[in-house]
Amino acid sequence: METVTPRRYAILTEGLLVGTHGKTAHGVLRYRDDAVAVVIDSDYAGKRVDEVVPWLGSRAPIVATLEEAMQYAPNALLVGVATSGGKMPPSMRPTVLAAIDKGLEIVNGLHECLRDDPEFVKRAQRSGSRLWDVRVPPDDIPLFSGAAYNVPSQVVLAIGSDCAVGKMTAMLEVERAAKEEGARIEFVATGQTGILIAGKGIAVDRVISDFVTGAAEQLVLDAAKTADVVFVEGQGSIFHPAYAPVTFGLLYGSAPDALVLCHRVGKTHIAGFDNVALPDLAQLIRDHEALLDRVKPAKVIAIALDTSALSDADARAAIAQTAKETGLPVDDPVRNGGLGLWRAIENGVRTTPKALALAASR
Amino acid sequence: METVTPRRYAILTEGLLVGTHGKTAHGVLRYRDDAVAVVIDSDYAGKRVDEVVPWLGSRAPIVATLEEAMQYAPNALLVGVATSGGKMPPSMRPTVLAAIDKGLEIVNGLHECLRDDPEFVKRAQRSGSRLWDVRVPPDDIPLFSGAAYNVPSQVVLAIGSDCAVGKMTAMLEVERAAKEEGARIEFVATGQTGILIAGKGIAVDRVISDFVTGAAEQLVLDAAKTADVVFVEGQGSIFHPAYAPVTFGLLYGSAPDALVLCHRVGKTHIAGFDNVALPDLAQLIRDHEALLDRVKPAKVIAIALDTSALSDADARAAIAQTAKETGLPVDDPVRNGGLGLWRAIENGVRTTPKALALAASR
Repeated sequence: METVTPRRYAILTEGLLVGTHGKTAHGVLRYRDDAVAVVIDSDYAGKRVDEVVPWLGSRAPIVATLEEAMQYAPNALLVGVATSGGKMPPSMRPTVLAAIDKGLEIVNGLHECLRDDPEFVKRAQRSGSRLWDVRVPPDDIPLFSGAAYNVPSQVVLAIGSDCAVGKMTAMLEVERAAKEEGARIEFVATGQTGILIAGKGIAVDRVISDFVTGAAEQLVLDAAKTADVVFVEGQGSIFHPAYAPVTFGLLYGSAPDALVLCHRVGKTHIAGFDNVALPDLAQLIRDHEALLDRVKPAKVIAIALDTSALSDADARAAIAQTAKETGLPVDDPVRNGGLGLWRAIENGVRTTPKALALAASR
Repeated sequence: METVTPRRYAILTEGLLVGTHGKTAHGVLRYRDDAVAVVIDSDYAGKRVDEVVPWLGSRAPIVATLEEAMQYAPNALLVGVATSGGKMPPSMRPTVLAAIDKGLEIVNGLHECLRDDPEFVKRAQRSGSRLWDVRVPPDDIPLFSGAAYNVPSQVVLAIGSDCAVGKMTAMLEVERAAKEEGARIEFVATGQTGILIAGKGIAVDRVISDFVTGAAEQLVLDAAKTADVVFVEGQGSIFHPAYAPVTFGLLYGSAPDALVLCHRVGKTHIAGFDNVALPDLAQLIRDHEALLDRVKPAKVIAIALDTSALSDADARAAIAQTAKETGLPVDDPVRNGGLGLWRAIENGVRTTPKALALAASR
């Protein structure tokens, strides 16, 4: 697990700020703009991010060189690109080495690990620079112990009908809205994009299977130290033929008090597996609740619907229809902002078994 | 995955053949006596195994030294002990080194890895000896692809109400009985003891979570090349708070056509987790079948009951009672031999969805 002083990132994108290869930078700029000091990309130097990629909503300055970036006092350099193959573009290497020499922490989400590069390691040892390969889990994860059952915080886990149905984004939108309301909440990242945004977390899909539940538990124990509500980023689906082990690692290991179901309108099957037809959402909710009933009971308290493919009118209709079918609060937090869903969650966690037990003991 | 010419083991126990530290040797002697050439243990040299540990049913000779053992033409040395802490007893080291120099494969189930010992590695490079640390999974496991859905073999997975309810033992007893009947079946090992017995397999609990289903699939694809019925060793329980990710890796990844439920009479909770009360067996069966119904349907076709704590009369009553409650064939294959359960499985796999589809296509 990664817990350090708040990062102030210089995000290195070097020609890739616009377009899909910049998605790592995009996630951080959209959801952790407060942690961004500056962007380094000579193609767009002199502009602000919102002048180049407006939807990110970030006013961070863009400069051409690390020297200029240092005026904004970053303490970390984020390799802000996701390349096909996961290798670092050779043009970035001199800047990364210079940042190491200046003692900046280097944060890397690429498959290619900083720690496997002898020159990076040697220079970092000399300067005291820290190298963080976010995809690599810590090697001291304990087995699941049940300690997560006893945290006083309300733990809310995002579950989904499949991978890539907006679980992370929904949680981040809700977190943002909740924090604007002054709530003490924390987003717990379990995948590499989320980790880059949160600045800490564990890529649970890279953890040895015996320790996935333990990894989820450690993340919850850590977040519960400071948060009243812990938002755990979900992964996969309980019916995903390939990735369900990761999903169950979070479902049991994070010991949730409540669930938020994430779904993309129109999805009928697990992507890539025509043999797995999804049940309707009411049944999907029952299936999750029945599993947790045996371990630690938790209910689905809200639904985050990805309506991005629909018109405004169709989205409104889909949200209303889903609410009717399930009897639950439903919203698209990307389309409509996270406040509506946060209100539903805030309300839902008042009546979890843990909340009722705490209230009864007062 | 490990596929090699059949091993003829010299099993090294050196003073530990009797007692719990010898359990690695015991498993192989009980279930793979045909793969055992000789045992090396100077405390019992000159006797046969059945004169020292009768219940193993092995007539393998015991000798004092590797030199003597070589007369029995072993091609592998099995480190046949499980020590607390998982370290190799120092007294074994000279024998292991001598076996390496003779070119024998060294098979090791201890936590302490052969490959991490520079002297073992150097000597093995010189002699061409192979070092196999059975706990370490291969590093080229692919993601689950769905290829296991298409094997012509009948895949039977052992599931359980918990860890340590006799899943491996039940499968091995059934395999032995089935092979005596001439059936083309193969036991697929997924844990380290099973791997030592089978001579191949993958310790799935050591596989990175994203790849557990892929590991299970590869094991099935491999076994299906030569077996009509593939018996997959199960792990854990779908309701185990810590180990369910491993369980689901096998449940989805091995793509079973049928399930054999393993249970120890009197078990009511997951060991170590008082919060997890087990449903009755009929419900436990429904829970598994409901999950698989969404992915690849499979039914429980038989129950293996561990009645080892009961008298003969009580065991008979428990078996009858369980059969009545579930409507399924029930037996304790350790107490009564594996033939009864094999007959039930042989019968059960005739009506799996795959068997019916194959029959219809003929």
